[in-house]
Amino acid sequence: MIIVVKPNTKEEDIQRLIKMIETQGLNIHYSKGVDHTILGIVGDTTLADVEKIRSNRIVENVLRVQEPYKKANRLFHPDDTIITVKGRKVGEGTISVMAGPCSVESEEQIVSIAKSVKESGATFLRGGAFKPRTSPYAFQGLGYEGLELLKIARKETGLPIVSELMSLEHLEAFEDVDIIQVGARNMQNFDLLRELGKIDKPILLKRGMSSTMQEFLMSAEYIMKEGNDKVILCERGIRTFETATRNTLDISCIPVLKQKSHLPIIVDPSHATGLSWTVEALTKAAIAAGADGVMIEVHNNPEEALCDGEQSITPEQFHKIMITVKKYAEFENKVM
Amino acid sequence: MIIVVKPNTKEEDIQRLIKMIETQGLNIHYSKGVDHTILGIVGDTTLADVEKIRSNRIVENVLRVQEPYKKANRLFHPDDTIITVKGRKVGEGTISVMAGPCSVESEEQIVSIAKSVKESGATFLRGGAFKPRTSPYAFQGLGYEGLELLKIARKETGLPIVSELMSLEHLEAFEDVDIIQVGARNMQNFDLLRELGKIDKPILLKRGMSSTMQEFLMSAEYIMKEGNDKVILCERGIRTFETATRNTLDISCIPVLKQKSHLPIIVDPSHATGLSWTVEALTKAAIAAGADGVMIEVHNNPEEALCDGEQSITPEQFHKIMITVKKYAEFENKVM
Amino acid sequence: MIIVVKPNTKEEDIQRLIKMIETQGLNIHYSKGVDHTILGIVGDTTLADVEKIRSNRIVENVLRVQEPYKKANRLFHPDDTIITVKGRKVGEGTISVMAGPCSVESEEQIVSIAKSVKESGATFLRGGAFKPRTSPYAFQGLGYEGLELLKIARKETGLPIVSELMSLEHLEAFEDVDIIQVGARNMQNFDLLRELGKIDKPILLKRGMSSTMQEFLMSAEYIMKEGNDKVILCERGIRTFETATRNTLDISCIPVLKQKSHLPIIVDPSHATGLSWTVEALTKAAIAAGADGVMIEVHNNPEEALCDGEQSITPEQFHKIMITVKKYAEFENKVM
Amino acid sequence: MIIVVKPNTKEEDIQRLIKMIETQGLNIHYSKGVDHTILGIVGDTTLADVEKIRSNRIVENVLRVQEPYKKANRLFHPDDTIITVKGRKVGEGTISVMAGPCSVESEEQIVSIAKSVKESGATFLRGGAFKPRTSPYAFQGLGYEGLELLKIARKETGLPIVSELMSLEHLEAFEDVDIIQVGARNMQNFDLLRELGKIDKPILLKRGMSSTMQEFLMSAEYIMKEGNDKVILCERGIRTFETATRNTLDISCIPVLKQKSHLPIIVDPSHATGLSWTVEALTKAAIAAGADGVMIEVHNNPEEALCDGEQSITPEQFHKIMITVKKYAEFENKVM
Repeated sequence: MIIVVKPNTKEEDIQRLIKMIETQGLNIHYSKGVDHTILGIVGDTTLADVEKIRSNRIVENVLRVQEPYKKANRLFHPDDTIITVKGRKVGEGTISVMAGPCSVESEEQIVSIAKSVKESGATFLRGGAFKPRTSPYAFQGLGYEGLELLKIARKETGLPIVSELMSLEHLEAFEDVDIIQVGARNMQNFDLLRELGKIDKPILLKRGMSSTMQEFLMSAEYIMKEGNDKVILCERGIRTFETATRNTLDISCIPVLKQKSHLPIIVDPSHATGLSWTVEALTKAAIAAGADGVMIEVHNNPEEALCDGEQSITPEQFHKIMITVKKYAEFENKVM
Repeated sequence: MIIVVKPNTKEEDIQRLIKMIETQGLNIHYSKGVDHTILGIVGDTTLADVEKIRSNRIVENVLRVQEPYKKANRLFHPDDTIITVKGRKVGEGTISVMAGPCSVESEEQIVSIAKSVKESGATFLRGGAFKPRTSPYAFQGLGYEGLELLKIARKETGLPIVSELMSLEHLEAFEDVDIIQVGARNMQNFDLLRELGKIDKPILLKRGMSSTMQEFLMSAEYIMKEGNDKVILCERGIRTFETATRNTLDISCIPVLKQKSHLPIIVDPSHATGLSWTVEALTKAAIAAGADGVMIEVHNNPEEALCDGEQSITPEQFHKIMITVKKYAEFENKVM
Repeated sequence: MIIVVKPNTKEEDIQRLIKMIETQGLNIHYSKGVDHTILGIVGDTTLADVEKIRSNRIVENVLRVQEPYKKANRLFHPDDTIITVKGRKVGEGTISVMAGPCSVESEEQIVSIAKSVKESGATFLRGGAFKPRTSPYAFQGLGYEGLELLKIARKETGLPIVSELMSLEHLEAFEDVDIIQVGARNMQNFDLLRELGKIDKPILLKRGMSSTMQEFLMSAEYIMKEGNDKVILCERGIRTFETATRNTLDISCIPVLKQKSHLPIIVDPSHATGLSWTVEALTKAAIAAGADGVMIEVHNNPEEALCDGEQSITPEQFHKIMITVKKYAEFENKVM
Repeated sequence: MIIVVKPNTKEEDIQRLIKMIETQGLNIHYSKGVDHTILGIVGDTTLADVEKIRSNRIVENVLRVQEPYKKANRLFHPDDTIITVKGRKVGEGTISVMAGPCSVESEEQIVSIAKSVKESGATFLRGGAFKPRTSPYAFQGLGYEGLELLKIARKETGLPIVSELMSLEHLEAFEDVDIIQVGARNMQNFDLLRELGKIDKPILLKRGMSSTMQEFLMSAEYIMKEGNDKVILCERGIRTFETATRNTLDISCIPVLKQKSHLPIIVDPSHATGLSWTVEALTKAAIAAGADGVMIEVHNNPEEALCDGEQSITPEQFHKIMITVKKYAEFENKVM
């Protein structure tokens, strides 16, 4: 970390700042220039209180040289993290395909979709039981019953299940869910993250709609700091000025997050645009850009879906997309 | 709500769509044009499932004529909502000033700040006990102890207290807090909102960093739907491309929210920019634009603040700002 | 176009509005509902003055059913536009690769890069002679001399050349340039667009940093309205809150623009992120998403580049990327 | 400027970088830390090629300590710039009010509006002759005739006139215009800025819809570098995700630009939201935040306006707003 001191600062004020930083267990490299004095901070600055330093009236600017996360940082963990879920790997070298309806609606629906996506090559079944909805008047999911139906579909197909946890009070009910999803709106629900860090289960962490990549990794760090290293990042579109699509898929975050972190990253093209007819193009793009997988909404009857029908594709469309995904995986020397 | 049907749609498909909508308890006004058929939906469309309609393959577009919220909607509640907290009014006609430190640090600190801001004219004491922090390594607040210290400061000064609730498991401890704040990151924590709708206490709801005004009002609706009408909106800056300020204060939202809703709206200039030297200009602008109050971070020693020192002003600076705020209030015929 | 009239509007006011619209040569379909009166506008609403209609005090809302562009609209031109430049096709079915330095620096530099990228499979040579720079103190390009050097490189390699026109006063000098590029900052320089519509030369139109897809197509329409149909769209990243990359590549715009328009679309991954090490991933993603080509900055010595070295790749890196691009093209049954 | 060198860099590579920088006329302060080597650049870094430095493979990061503009920088010009136009001052201490229609439509219209706004207290007459329109099918202004009509209105009222120049080919016709406006879409039309720097006339520079404050000041610098110091900055709303307003007025930019620069700054509330009923609140907010004036669209008959009627207020509404503006000016000890 580099601290630029304001011009014309008194030496005694600089010394006071240096002492304050040293009490945080850090060493200072002091460098006096013609206009500006620069303090280089040596040591583990993850724990340094940048805000406190920046609010000091003699400080002009602070530049972090090191990212503020440690456990999610590739610098300290050069090897890719590969997470094994019921014998299936998630991470570098494998393309994971998580498919299923936005919302579990009935046993018949979820079992039928599960069988169909499995046949096409999906490796995980996704389905919402607790649904975050912008409107309090919209369908909020089947809740606990939805989780039970997902388990039935898992039993029928062998596909591990992924479902979203919205609140800690439901945590117990998720004990038998294979991957717990944290939704975009909860990416900075820090109490939730902290508790998920204390359990031994893979967490699929969705990027917040207006979260920077650094904030995204800091939220992963919240989970990892408590001991749970099994974090899967999921890019699902960010909020921009563009209105032709619901959100803007940030495809660049795949290579950038891969460089900054060792965690697996998958892409949700369905939520990114909210337009089912773009899912094929975006799925291909995600795999081509290096994503470790995709999460796709598939519904047997999108027009009758109780939520998000607009972005769901049919099992037939999914089947067609999977043909390409398989070729791409082969092409990139990855397994599925 | 207006539904535009795709060109060249078969009459039987249109009739099927009409029937589906009618099962939602709505009436249809059918209008056949040369190119497009248009269906006007008559009745309370708040409950209509727009997504389901939009995902129908014969639908080209859906236009909401009516906003999707009811209880927060000025259309149905033309009079301004005025909330009384310990004898103090919040809402049209009154300028509320909520001042205090980002974080409660000690009894001495909070009591001293409380006395000072009261003397300058603040009408509420704000202070964080549970702090949402981007980094898991940053100071997370004093927790329950912080709440107790706030109550001591209230006893000493008579100022009602405002503090942020981060998680439902702390709800009981907030029973004696006068206004419960929901932070920007929790604006769409729907389970939290729903529970806060079941208690009888004013809720200060902060706008999410990337939430539209409509989403903001939908979150207020979540609380109000359960029975709690005492919602105070708080604009605190939205996320944009600009990096010279931490966020961009959306000053336009004051007149727009006032037109769309009857709820009080206050502005937090401190979080909006993160720059203490802009607080004076933005406080004045907020009051001039018609806000019902401001929430300002004041710290006796910003350089030593355990969080957000960069955006805190000193009691002396606060005193100076309050002189202007009082003049503006008088000018606009408002009380404080 | 659908006009929603405000509730409780007098019939005579509605009739006056109808007459005003009819003077614009449009027909009205009148539909009176319980709460709202709806006017459906029949005819070519491209020319309708939406703003004038919206500013009418009895109008609550206006919904465009038809896009406001005609010549760029796939609805009226279902077949893909394919542009032939010196015998090379640009458009559906072909992958065009435009490679070269941000800025032409010397004959040796441009000829050497041209030869190298040609050998790797580039089909066009790009190079800047006039450079738009944020700072007036930065290198602004070689100007006319740069154009001459590009022509020498074309002669040596046979690669058609693409270069940016910043101002109409240079137009004559571009007579012998094969594709004229309009930069992102000039996407809404309407006088420039209008003049380029009067010449018979392909125009590569870059999307403005904060332009919606609709505005992008409206700018293409400016050129096409004057008679020049040879417009190539180029996505180069949009401005968002994310700071880890210079801009955010809007990968979704490829399928969306392909659906809305018949024009070719190519992607510039170099400017999108400003990070040379992401170019490979983004190039692959662009081709996978269906782009008709890419524009890539290649520099023989990025560290010594007079501009944008940070985002340039070396000829060796370009060569490696082209191996993948060729495989993808084959896979998608496209020629290069 | 601070350069952070990557860890484990060879000393000879660092020495090579130092030499490269020294050839740019700059001195280096060399500081070797435990992990990172830091180079502090001493001297006028405005001219330093940051991109070239950043693209060097041994460079990890570059931090500008000094802003990249000089002439627009308050650091080098602590006193506020005050521009005199036909005897009227624009800048600190004065509130300038530029009012008039979006578009000049006829002699009767412009003269009538001019008289009316003058009577209410406007100090400048604004009116568009050349209009930038998103659609090529929309009304593009009266052109040269519009300028002549503005001059007639000036003669009738004595109000200096402000009008937008879209293209250099019209420059001659603007010789007798008092303030030349550069529109938001042309803020980075660098050739235009450069030429306007060579004339002796006040330039009202509008902020680009997605331009940072730094880019805004860099565009002012383009004009000032050529010798024309008479630049008036104009904030007119930036593009964000919010759709309830056309743009988001960045009210924070008033105190921030005032701190960074000595140039006058005025605010255009009409374009910021596109909603005439918000103009009063935003005008008050702008003055309260410290703006040196406002630019307001006034139309005698907004419903019949040939452009932007939705955001225009009537002369009666303008009159009412001016009563408040005058009180605020008095309150802040400013003249009008």
